[in-house]
Amino acid sequence: MLHDPALTLAADTEPSLPRWQQIAQALRDDIVAGRFLPGERMPNELVLAERFGVNRHTLRQAVKALADSGFVRVLHGRGTFVRELVLDYALQRRTRLTQNLAESGERAQRELRHAEVVAAGTWAAPLRLQAREKVEVLHTRAIVRGRVIGVSVSAFPWRRFEGVAAAFAQTGSVTASLRRYGVSDYTRARSVVSCRMPTADEADALARPTSAPVLVVDYVNVDAQGVPVEAGTTLFASDAVQLSVSPEDFHAD
Amino acid sequence: MLHDPALTLAADTEPSLPRWQQIAQALRDDIVAGRFLPGERMPNELVLAERFGVNRHTLRQAVKALADSGFVRVLHGRGTFVRELVLDYALQRRTRLTQNLAESGERAQRELRHAEVVAAGTWAAPLRLQAREKVEVLHTRAIVRGRVIGVSVSAFPWRRFEGVAAAFAQTGSVTASLRRYGVSDYTRARSVVSCRMPTADEADALARPTSAPVLVVDYVNVDAQGVPVEAGTTLFASDAVQLSVSPEDFHAD
Repeated sequence: MLHDPALTLAADTEPSLPRWQQIAQALRDDIVAGRFLPGERMPNELVLAERFGVNRHTLRQAVKALADSGFVRVLHGRGTFVRELVLDYALQRRTRLTQNLAESGERAQRELRHAEVVAAGTWAAPLRLQAREKVEVLHTRAIVRGRVIGVSVSAFPWRRFEGVAAAFAQTGSVTASLRRYGVSDYTRARSVVSCRMPTADEADALARPTSAPVLVVDYVNVDAQGVPVEAGTTLFASDAVQLSVSPEDFHAD
Repeated sequence: MLHDPALTLAADTEPSLPRWQQIAQALRDDIVAGRFLPGERMPNELVLAERFGVNRHTLRQAVKALADSGFVRVLHGRGTFVRELVLDYALQRRTRLTQNLAESGERAQRELRHAEVVAAGTWAAPLRLQAREKVEVLHTRAIVRGRVIGVSVSAFPWRRFEGVAAAFAQTGSVTASLRRYGVSDYTRARSVVSCRMPTADEADALARPTSAPVLVVDYVNVDAQGVPVEAGTTLFASDAVQLSVSPEDFHAD
């Protein structure tokens, strides 16, 4: 638990809803905000009923609603557990990490871990640069419900996007950062998905054991003229993320 | 090694090619046919030169050509090794395992391991059936270069496709099997990709250790009217397969 959940009804809870729905909403907000972590056992019924000032029947209705919507799992005789996150991350024409997750009702926060300006090297080919040209490389992580779900390393052509790390640090968004350089839109040219065990450093960055495999997405994003603007690799924690691919997500505008 | 490679020039080797190219082609055929397995060390230069009846210089030219085209890796002082397979498997509008690999120059063979007719159960939702309706379930495996690269479990609505296992056993192809039931075309409605450690049985079926993660693809194929014809799960060996997703592969006809 990151810090004590309120376990009371927030001021912005819809007052016209039945009491059990208000409680379900308050508990869901606690889960989504990471105040209860995936896998954690929630306080028992009696404790929750007392804190919300309701009877056990009302509390049970709230917990059942949470279970039906996939936020918790009730294991009889063992308690109510916050479900492990399995985020459905769509690989689509416009693949945007934060927005993608927002559509599934989750709030993702992206953080810059560090950045550097280096020779393009292996990024040269996907970005169509000369190996000696520079790239600005951002090391970021994505956090959902208080938990790291993925870490990315992505490179931007430095000549065009000098200072993009600072823009990302302010905005927490690649889309908003690129807009500052006049890139109003970009699309995913290609994603390659693989699966492997993480290195010790990667496991550490993901806050997972080295025994948990990672889902790896290598990608290239291009601007409206088809010029590469970003090449990157994201490692997703395999316990938290699955990728979905649907033809309708690729329809051109 | 499955059985002794010929290490001689086959009758169908292009006779107009320079000798080193003929040898490169013969060795490549041995690799693609699985007569040398991924990771295996090839016989040393002297042995190969003698068997092909050429000098070391000619043999080296052939090996260099194989290395340049990615079939072998020359580790100085250690020998020449057949490269591990990393097949690029495209998730696209028409996702066909065998044809997909054929486009990358690999020959895939699909084998029926066993089949059963059971109540739809968890297959009911993706196939839009009632849970008590029957499905014919095929357990298959795909082999490339003599090595299992993936195992699939896929379910077909039994009422429409009774006997599809027998058709698959004859044709080695889902596409050819469905054609017998009047399904001239089908498309991939959705793929969900995840990554996990295999069970002991799954590792066994893949001929991999339980310490090697698997890339999991859950999918649904639909006919021209959008009616589900097949729902399945493929486990790909993560050392052998990566999945690619490109927008142009999803253009409607």
